[in-house]
Amino acid sequence: MSSDVSLKILSKSVGSTVLVRLRNGKVLRGLLKGYDQHMNIVLEDTDELVDENTHNKLGTIVVRGDSIVMISPP
Amino acid sequence: MSSDVSLKILSKSVGSTVLVRLRNGKVLRGLLKGYDQHMNIVLEDTDELVDENTHNKLGTIVVRGDSIVMISPP
Amino acid sequence: MSSDVSLKILSKSVGSTVLVRLRNGKVLRGLLKGYDQHMNIVLEDTDELVDENTHNKLGTIVVRGDSIVMISPP
Amino acid sequence: MSSDVSLKILSKSVGSTVLVRLRNGKVLRGLLKGYDQHMNIVLEDTDELVDENTHNKLGTIVVRGDSIVMISPP
Amino acid sequence: MSSDVSLKILSKSVGSTVLVRLRNGKVLRGLLKGYDQHMNIVLEDTDELVDENTHNKLGTIVVRGDSIVMISPP
Amino acid sequence: MSSDVSLKILSKSVGSTVLVRLRNGKVLRGLLKGYDQHMNIVLEDTDELVDENTHNKLGTIVVRGDSIVMISPP
Amino acid sequence: MSSDVSLKILSKSVGSTVLVRLRNGKVLRGLLKGYDQHMNIVLEDTDELVDENTHNKLGTIVVRGDSIVMISPP
Repeated sequence: MSSDVSLKILSKSVGSTVLVRLRNGKVLRGLLKGYDQHMNIVLEDTDELVDENTHNKLGTIVVRGDSIVMISPP
Repeated sequence: MSSDVSLKILSKSVGSTVLVRLRNGKVLRGLLKGYDQHMNIVLEDTDELVDENTHNKLGTIVVRGDSIVMISPP
Repeated sequence: MSSDVSLKILSKSVGSTVLVRLRNGKVLRGLLKGYDQHMNIVLEDTDELVDENTHNKLGTIVVRGDSIVMISPP
Repeated sequence: MSSDVSLKILSKSVGSTVLVRLRNGKVLRGLLKGYDQHMNIVLEDTDELVDENTHNKLGTIVVRGDSIVMISPP
Repeated sequence: MSSDVSLKILSKSVGSTVLVRLRNGKVLRGLLKGYDQHMNIVLEDTDELVDENTHNKLGTIVVRGDSIVMISPP
Repeated sequence: MSSDVSLKILSKSVGSTVLVRLRNGKVLRGLLKGYDQHMNIVLEDTDELVDENTHNKLGTIVVRGDSIVMISPP
Repeated sequence: MSSDVSLKILSKSVGSTVLVRLRNGKVLRGLLKGYDQHMNIVLEDTDELVDENTHNKLGTIVVRGDSIVMISPP
């Protein structure tokens, strides 16, 4: 049964750095602390990747699942 | 079990100043008074951060969860 | 328990003047007559704040909750 | 209890002329014939208010609630 | 009780020509064959009204309710 | 009872070529293999109709119902 | 019964390379590892197809179903 593979991937990624692409075009990189069934996630030590040389430090954040396009585990 | 880490983060942030980024691009900073399961939040002493030197005072506000992209605890 | 603080704030604001920011960028000011669990609200003596000197009189209105970004109690 | 004041306002407005503002920016004026819990409404003798001097006659229409920003009772 | 007047209007319009305005700005005219509780509708002999002199023939179509702004019965 | 006429039309169209208009403005033509209650559909031998002379071959595709504006049976 | 043909297609595509078109206009190609009932999917060895000669390597990703327009099985 492959149907909850997405939550399994998130579960295995807790404690690792993930890349998150948002609907508003922004890209975040941070340590995945947790998630819920709406794909709301908590990231720590988060950087917003503005361009190759510019990162905005966002620290710990809660990101709403419905703002997320995709999440790349490490 | 990591699945309600987002509400736990919000719960721990009640009484602290948080940064809230909205879908319409605006950024708010205020004291988190409470939240609900839709991530509707109540902020006190809220500033809308227009640019580095300009803040609009909004006082106490209720923000709809579906307008929120992310919340940064302190 | 802080989880229904947003409805409590609205409840306490019934009978007072509130400021409502909409998704379409418009700002309303009116007397809050009531609300429901979808955050649909009823305002009386409503002004649409076009700019500092221009207000459109809208009278009594029902505003759909999903059009609302935030509500500022008085 | 103020929580279903919005449906009460609509209920009292049945048979009266209301103004309806839509998400697409259009404004309708018509006689409210009815509504349901999704705020879908039926209007009769509806005019679309293009500008102060131009009205498009739309007759009887069913308007989906999720297209509506606000409704002004008479 | 006025609360399902919108479905009643649709019910009475089955077999008649209706005008349908879509979220994407397009306007359809066709014979209403049926509808469901999501306001999904089936039209026959449908014309897309491009301008006063130009109609695209679409024949029989299923239109998703969440694409519809309003429906004008005949 | 006319209320599930839309699924009936889809049901009768399985095995036939249908035209599908998407929210993003694109138009697909393909053989309808199936559908579900969300109006997710499966098309085979799908062409994306770019203009009158240009078709992109997409083969078999699953299209999400909430991306669809309308479906024209043959 | 044709009603869950879309999940059946996805089920048969697990382990194969699929093409995914997103709402934001982007196109992904990757090995389908799994999916769930929201059409959230997990892809491995994912490339974002920027143009015919440029591919961004995204590795393993979780894509939210509501960001997806269509999925092409191999």
